[in-house]
Amino acid sequence: MKIAVVGLGNAGLPLAAVIAEKGFKVVGVDVDARRCSQINKGINPIPQEPELNELIKKHGGKNLIATSQYKDAANSNFYIVIVPLFIDDNHQPDFKFVKSAFRNIGKILKKGDCVVLETTVPPKTTETLIKKWLEEESGLVLGDFYLAHSPERIMTGYSISRLKEFPKIVGGVDTKSGKKAFEVYKKFVSNLSLVSSARVAEFIKVIEGCYRFANIALANELFKIAEELEIDFFEAREYANHEYCDIHMPSTGVGGHCIPVYPWFLINEMKGKNKIENSLLLRTAHLINEEMIEFWAERIVEGCMKIDKPINEVKICVQGITFRKGAKSLYNSRNLALAKHLMEKKLNVFVYDELLSKEEIVELGLKFIKPDVADLVFDCFALEMKK
Amino acid sequence: MKIAVVGLGNAGLPLAAVIAEKGFKVVGVDVDARRCSQINKGINPIPQEPELNELIKKHGGKNLIATSQYKDAANSNFYIVIVPLFIDDNHQPDFKFVKSAFRNIGKILKKGDCVVLETTVPPKTTETLIKKWLEEESGLVLGDFYLAHSPERIMTGYSISRLKEFPKIVGGVDTKSGKKAFEVYKKFVSNLSLVSSARVAEFIKVIEGCYRFANIALANELFKIAEELEIDFFEAREYANHEYCDIHMPSTGVGGHCIPVYPWFLINEMKGKNKIENSLLLRTAHLINEEMIEFWAERIVEGCMKIDKPINEVKICVQGITFRKGAKSLYNSRNLALAKHLMEKKLNVFVYDELLSKEEIVELGLKFIKPDVADLVFDCFALEMKK
Repeated sequence: MKIAVVGLGNAGLPLAAVIAEKGFKVVGVDVDARRCSQINKGINPIPQEPELNELIKKHGGKNLIATSQYKDAANSNFYIVIVPLFIDDNHQPDFKFVKSAFRNIGKILKKGDCVVLETTVPPKTTETLIKKWLEEESGLVLGDFYLAHSPERIMTGYSISRLKEFPKIVGGVDTKSGKKAFEVYKKFVSNLSLVSSARVAEFIKVIEGCYRFANIALANELFKIAEELEIDFFEAREYANHEYCDIHMPSTGVGGHCIPVYPWFLINEMKGKNKIENSLLLRTAHLINEEMIEFWAERIVEGCMKIDKPINEVKICVQGITFRKGAKSLYNSRNLALAKHLMEKKLNVFVYDELLSKEEIVELGLKFIKPDVADLVFDCFALEMKK
Repeated sequence: MKIAVVGLGNAGLPLAAVIAEKGFKVVGVDVDARRCSQINKGINPIPQEPELNELIKKHGGKNLIATSQYKDAANSNFYIVIVPLFIDDNHQPDFKFVKSAFRNIGKILKKGDCVVLETTVPPKTTETLIKKWLEEESGLVLGDFYLAHSPERIMTGYSISRLKEFPKIVGGVDTKSGKKAFEVYKKFVSNLSLVSSARVAEFIKVIEGCYRFANIALANELFKIAEELEIDFFEAREYANHEYCDIHMPSTGVGGHCIPVYPWFLINEMKGKNKIENSLLLRTAHLINEEMIEFWAERIVEGCMKIDKPINEVKICVQGITFRKGAKSLYNSRNLALAKHLMEKKLNVFVYDELLSKEEIVELGLKFIKPDVADLVFDCFALEMKK
């Protein structure tokens, strides 16, 4: 059994390393040749991921060979794909990287091979687009090869431990594919369940995201209500939550690659079926989360008015502009959107982020400041106004 | 320390019994003299509540004296009120029973007494209405007496175990009241926390309900989407749920005395403050939950169309019309609403419920049937169509 992992990013590399640790020969394919060369030298390109340094040092260039060439993976018989999927400004998924990965795998696919998609996609993608791309490129038909979906449930910073303990699911495009993928995954994932289809597996991952998305909107709404009632939301939340209650944290909105993206997979599907009314709650949650930018901007301006300076001279520090605390990414960052919204109002906005250097902040066209010299600091993660 | 519990219903009686079991002398006040007489004979009026029979048998008429006269509670120094609060057709709370209880307590209130409200109420009720009623009737002012809120977290069928283990909170209208109520409750509630105010305690209970309400709406929406995508929602839900995900069960809507009621406490408050937009998610969740009746009615009619009979001759059995499985109450029952909706369409609707006799069903103006002789059975709890 030789396994290829396509995509050595935040989700793919930890998986490839865990598989190598289980004693398999793994070929890792990534478009970034420099990253591949690093991995082969035993250098971990994601040093902030606990336990990963050790695994890459141990297996990089040995059990785990990274390459930018698909042909180097040609003698694999099990392919796992974890490449990014983005959505455009109209909330439509952009399959560019996914399509390229599967068309390239199709070119080297042999009879009896099994292919598993881990990237989160709209329900039905594996059985339609992915199958089509593989069949077109390989000249084979499903049945000659196996195809399944097993959505990654990685969380940056917890990737290795999640792969060891967290429940993982796999579903095949047909029954044989499901069983085949399950048998192999079982060798390196301990908490694994086989579900009835790839479509169900896709849906499972998407609705998990929808749960978080809707509950963040609920938290944002309850936070605003608590403020009107002069109630400390955080105290109330602490005691409201128990075994049967999980009120989420309010925020500046929902950022990142996952949670704000997945609801659109379902909203788009319903739109396509002229059943847009079936996505009312998800669309309402989107509106509420998006509007938090204006909510916090108002609070910041109220804070500025209390400072004895012309409003456009108050040095505002927006602290924490990555999309989430601890994740060095600005993708869909609502914290960054908040800073920009204030800048558009011609306020004197500066930025500080513990994960970004002064140079990185300036490169983004933003002004850097240390919080202690600002007149007013808004901490985007703690939702606290200081000074 | 002599304790009075006002309201010996599904929530009040278990609490009174648990307090008696802890060795306190308890006077239970209830408007229903027949119920009181039963309790004093050691007969449990809620036999379906586990462990309660034994406690009532042991303490009824001894440590726990039930009475319909407030004057019999006049030598108490700690009053706990658990009486029903309903909302009217315009979603406005009807304080009739709450007001009557506190006005009556006010008449017997002495300096140094402590009063605790357990009924779930809109935030600020304890510090405004309740305080006013007590002061007006007693001629005392807050400070002479203590006033707090400790929302009941009872669930019918689990009342005694919940009182033993489940986290409970208490918050005072002022600091002294909170401390006083906390000290006494601590003697019979093991998992107790003091929060900063009665208002926060009220809010905590209300947002727990809002969490369930919004998440039932989310489940209903995702169920409809799954159906469109030809995905088994229940399979997906089983594997989607884990430590960080709690997708609820879909339903015919939300019934009962609690969950469909509490969101309106917040919606009304926001309306009163001209901030109705702050309750967008709650109002959307209400719409989605209400519309489930029409959703299921459509499915039932589709089922009827497959049966070889004129549609208005198909014997439809709506199975399970109480608001929730295992709770013998029709209050806000969406299952009953579904049956009535189908009857309005002049379909041939019958009803079966394991908690209701044929006579009770006929008394409601409904037709009784045993499921096995119906042409089509819709199980409102399992959401399953049979035959």
